[in-house]
Amino acid sequence: MINSYLAIVEEELKKLEYPDSPGELYEPIEYILALGGKRIRPILCLMAAELYGADIRSKQYTSIALAIEIFHNFSLVHDDIMDEAPLRRGKETVHQKWNRDIAILSGDVMLVQAYDAILKAENENFKDLIAQFNRSAIKVCEGQQYDMNFETSKRVNINDYIEMISLKTAELIGCSLKLGAIASNASKRDAELLYSFGLNLGLAFQIQDDYLDAFGESEKVGKQVGGDILANKKTYLMLKTLELANEQQKADIERALNYSPADKVEAILQIFNEVGVKQHTMEIIDGFFQKAVADLKMVSVEMDKKEGLSQLANYLMKRDH
Amino acid sequence: MINSYLAIVEEELKKLEYPDSPGELYEPIEYILALGGKRIRPILCLMAAELYGADIRSKQYTSIALAIEIFHNFSLVHDDIMDEAPLRRGKETVHQKWNRDIAILSGDVMLVQAYDAILKAENENFKDLIAQFNRSAIKVCEGQQYDMNFETSKRVNINDYIEMISLKTAELIGCSLKLGAIASNASKRDAELLYSFGLNLGLAFQIQDDYLDAFGESEKVGKQVGGDILANKKTYLMLKTLELANEQQKADIERALNYSPADKVEAILQIFNEVGVKQHTMEIIDGFFQKAVADLKMVSVEMDKKEGLSQLANYLMKRDH
Repeated sequence: MINSYLAIVEEELKKLEYPDSPGELYEPIEYILALGGKRIRPILCLMAAELYGADIRSKQYTSIALAIEIFHNFSLVHDDIMDEAPLRRGKETVHQKWNRDIAILSGDVMLVQAYDAILKAENENFKDLIAQFNRSAIKVCEGQQYDMNFETSKRVNINDYIEMISLKTAELIGCSLKLGAIASNASKRDAELLYSFGLNLGLAFQIQDDYLDAFGESEKVGKQVGGDILANKKTYLMLKTLELANEQQKADIERALNYSPADKVEAILQIFNEVGVKQHTMEIIDGFFQKAVADLKMVSVEMDKKEGLSQLANYLMKRDH
Repeated sequence: MINSYLAIVEEELKKLEYPDSPGELYEPIEYILALGGKRIRPILCLMAAELYGADIRSKQYTSIALAIEIFHNFSLVHDDIMDEAPLRRGKETVHQKWNRDIAILSGDVMLVQAYDAILKAENENFKDLIAQFNRSAIKVCEGQQYDMNFETSKRVNINDYIEMISLKTAELIGCSLKLGAIASNASKRDAELLYSFGLNLGLAFQIQDDYLDAFGESEKVGKQVGGDILANKKTYLMLKTLELANEQQKADIERALNYSPADKVEAILQIFNEVGVKQHTMEIIDGFFQKAVADLKMVSVEMDKKEGLSQLANYLMKRDH
């Protein structure tokens, strides 16, 4: 089911043509877009459009789905520079494989290409699509800035964190669905409900990602377990643990920050377990997921048409816990 | 005359509203846009629109002019990171005053804001404006990539150089005029002529900039004289000098590359003078300028209406030589 949407997205990505020169600019774009990933965002866009009878093989919709995937990868390329991440999807990041400047510039080009893909969709709701895309793009950048601020801030609470991931991660998922809805002339109410469905699903998904970073298995997650702990990320897990911890445990966390990498991960995970943050985290994930389900239920389209979105949401949330 | 257009642009910039938070994202944008500059590009946009009877105080045009100025400043912020430039218009660059990550991210936001300004113009030719803007934005990035490639390439010739500055600098000047023309329903032919006028003016302007970097006076130029020489930039001056130099002079240049900064500038300038590159440079500047004049002449609008553009072109080229 999901595979048929994925096939459309992959085909659209394959159709992208890259000028030969300057190779330093276009090779990284081709590289990052070919690294794969689940293509969740463009698939959500197509599924949302299909709710309203769209022929989702038409350029009107595929090109908008493409725009979202290009934008998403633009943000990954730039974020990876800022996070100094060596790996993305198990392969070298663009700034690592080429260099910082090439990563900045090829990211910039991708952002322009995203707009160009929306233009080339030749969808009648072009203006509304651009307006929503602009709003979401800005929010994604704001989210990344808050994320960076959190690294040095001493006073981050759980609400701040939810707000940050809502901007940095969930926004684009909501946007993907809303653009699909706008493109196929959904009512305003439905477009907003689908946006909210995406936002809540995105929040559930991101907190699950944090969860897996601490408790997942390395091979399934596709990245180093404990990476967030090593990077002193103030994830939901850490913030909730600090909320639940007694003075002794707080002091233990403080001390563990200076441990060697392996010891640090082990020590922090032990405190995570002591305070029982696993259970709390699973509950908040489920809370957002249930909100998403409720949003989808209210979308004024027959139940069976929403089956694809419902399946995709379940697929996303059912990794390895 | 030019001041009345400048006033419109400055007023439009002042109307821009920045969210309070995250300050790290919006303060740099406010800062760079307030650093000033001649605002040549938005002024050219307004002047082009006015040729066809546009009321250039209307948002339809001012907001497009604004988009161009925002885009220009986006490219400066990102280029300055790549060039590791400490100063811009005599003030600290964004990455210097804040940091690299903030410069990347606030630049990204500016690029989105540029699109948003085109949207908010509510001009009837929105699609054509976005299409041209996309083409030009990509070219500007390509130009920056070529510029970076040239730093390490041994085989750059004058044609490569002209192509590079045509993309990196002249393209946006041509684009500014063309967007103004498109916005006010100029004929395709006129829009292309104005684009070509801008391209040629931009080439003349950039080569003059190179010229002033070597032969200008520090206070008037607003940046360090000899900066291009210190950075081993393959400017028109250097490439033409290498073309004109005898074996001895080529060897002298090679050797001078390892000198201390002050000695390096002095040694290279001496060879510039020996081969008479000043004269050649003034000739090519004039060549492009005359092409620009010829383009403007062919624009099918009464001569007196084109006076503003003609004056601005002359103003641009009449700095201190």
